[in-house]
Amino acid sequence: MAIDDTYFTEVCKEGGSAFSFKIKRKLHEEQTPYQSIAIYETEAFGNLMVIDGYVMLTDRDNFLYHEMLSHPALFTHRDPRRALIIGGGDCGTLREVLKHPGIESAHQVEIDERVTRLSEQFFPELCMSNDDPRATLHFGDGIQWVKDAAPGSYDVIIVDSTDPIGPAEGLFREPFYRDCLNALGTGGIVVQQSESPLYHMGILKGIHKAMRSAGYADVRTLHFPQPVYPSGWWSATLARNEESVSGFREDAVKEKSFATRYYNHATHQGAFAMPTFMAEALGT
Amino acid sequence: MAIDDTYFTEVCKEGGSAFSFKIKRKLHEEQTPYQSIAIYETEAFGNLMVIDGYVMLTDRDNFLYHEMLSHPALFTHRDPRRALIIGGGDCGTLREVLKHPGIESAHQVEIDERVTRLSEQFFPELCMSNDDPRATLHFGDGIQWVKDAAPGSYDVIIVDSTDPIGPAEGLFREPFYRDCLNALGTGGIVVQQSESPLYHMGILKGIHKAMRSAGYADVRTLHFPQPVYPSGWWSATLARNEESVSGFREDAVKEKSFATRYYNHATHQGAFAMPTFMAEALGT
Repeated sequence: MAIDDTYFTEVCKEGGSAFSFKIKRKLHEEQTPYQSIAIYETEAFGNLMVIDGYVMLTDRDNFLYHEMLSHPALFTHRDPRRALIIGGGDCGTLREVLKHPGIESAHQVEIDERVTRLSEQFFPELCMSNDDPRATLHFGDGIQWVKDAAPGSYDVIIVDSTDPIGPAEGLFREPFYRDCLNALGTGGIVVQQSESPLYHMGILKGIHKAMRSAGYADVRTLHFPQPVYPSGWWSATLARNEESVSGFREDAVKEKSFATRYYNHATHQGAFAMPTFMAEALGT
Repeated sequence: MAIDDTYFTEVCKEGGSAFSFKIKRKLHEEQTPYQSIAIYETEAFGNLMVIDGYVMLTDRDNFLYHEMLSHPALFTHRDPRRALIIGGGDCGTLREVLKHPGIESAHQVEIDERVTRLSEQFFPELCMSNDDPRATLHFGDGIQWVKDAAPGSYDVIIVDSTDPIGPAEGLFREPFYRDCLNALGTGGIVVQQSESPLYHMGILKGIHKAMRSAGYADVRTLHFPQPVYPSGWWSATLARNEESVSGFREDAVKEKSFATRYYNHATHQGAFAMPTFMAEALGT
């Protein structure tokens, strides 16, 4: 069966592959000062957001990414109260962070306000916590924000960025991770979305190298299914200030007061289980 | 970027999605008495085998599927010596099974001999153990084979089949699983490839129900990335005769004499970590 113009397709050149969604209609399209954003209604994935031709998220499976980018770090830190999200304009990560009752403040620094405004319109369930009094939405440069942050002013920094090309490139480099380390308290954790274990091992290695050079005590990668991203398999890499990333508040996970769909104490541990080829490539 | 006729595409109707490979050339195509088989050389996945338009395997990522279909069951059984593979014509599962030095016999029953002959030609590395004196390749009806098997004659039965439509449909039903149970010794395990956790929960539920009705003591599903199958996320379901599927020979995994690329003691445990939505759907 051939695919025609009733599909939206993202070609992944480095993967030699493409992923397509059957589309009902295009809901919106605009050019912002930073990028082009399109929203589609799909047959089976609910709404779909595309930035510069790259799939950002869908209604159906964003829970995998948002849960695994936030809860492992938040349940590894012993008492996370102050969170920072760099990027994350769709607000799905922010929603997960604010599920933690111990969080006192969550700052989000997204460069393109239109991503957030369109999410409020087309992904309202992801934005349900935007009016939480603990949340502050800033629109500006995340790299500068972290550079200017007071030392030790955050417990967890989540880098929920696009791929390391274009504006997000600096978010994958040692100077940024060093500024994050300075902004983190003792035991503080930075989390970076770190691409596909199958397609992007070079990027993953680069993240590990940059984080280690920046001076973190420990760097570890977790992985999880993410059907709409290239290869359907994605990762996040955690680096911790002065402490190991191993171990987490397992009892707190078992007794957590909020619902998750993928994340639980078993999948937390499972996500850190390194396939042999990844352990060999990353030297972990 | 649009995709053109330099791509091979599999549309997954029930998933509202499609996955495509950039193709260098078509290496072979034939109609057998059972199905149509095509082999392509891809840009980034090595060789690709397609049956009736559905992606079967590629050089690049088949290790994920073959390792996770075989080693978790073989390291859960306390002393597997007699293995049966139903389907598995590409011989990748057979190769993994024969890596276990304790295996004394491995019978494979594939309905279409051409799948195996073409694999020997186009996927020689998967067929490197076909001449192992412990291996016997039969070409015929797997359902009948299991029906005729002597009671208690196998330790592990691996159902490495196509999707539950067409000829493989009977492999997903209670009568087949009951025949498997009869053919298994005490503590024996049947493994069934069980489709995508995201797209095919109805099939997964049906497998669990059929296996439980057939009289197994325990039924558990594991999951793993499989980029070239719909959603990029796949599962296998294990059912055990008289014993629990939990627990495995962890020390034996750590000391195993052969190499694997995804499977190890950590990913064994991690693969069984049930995402919350799956546990709820499957009642496990």
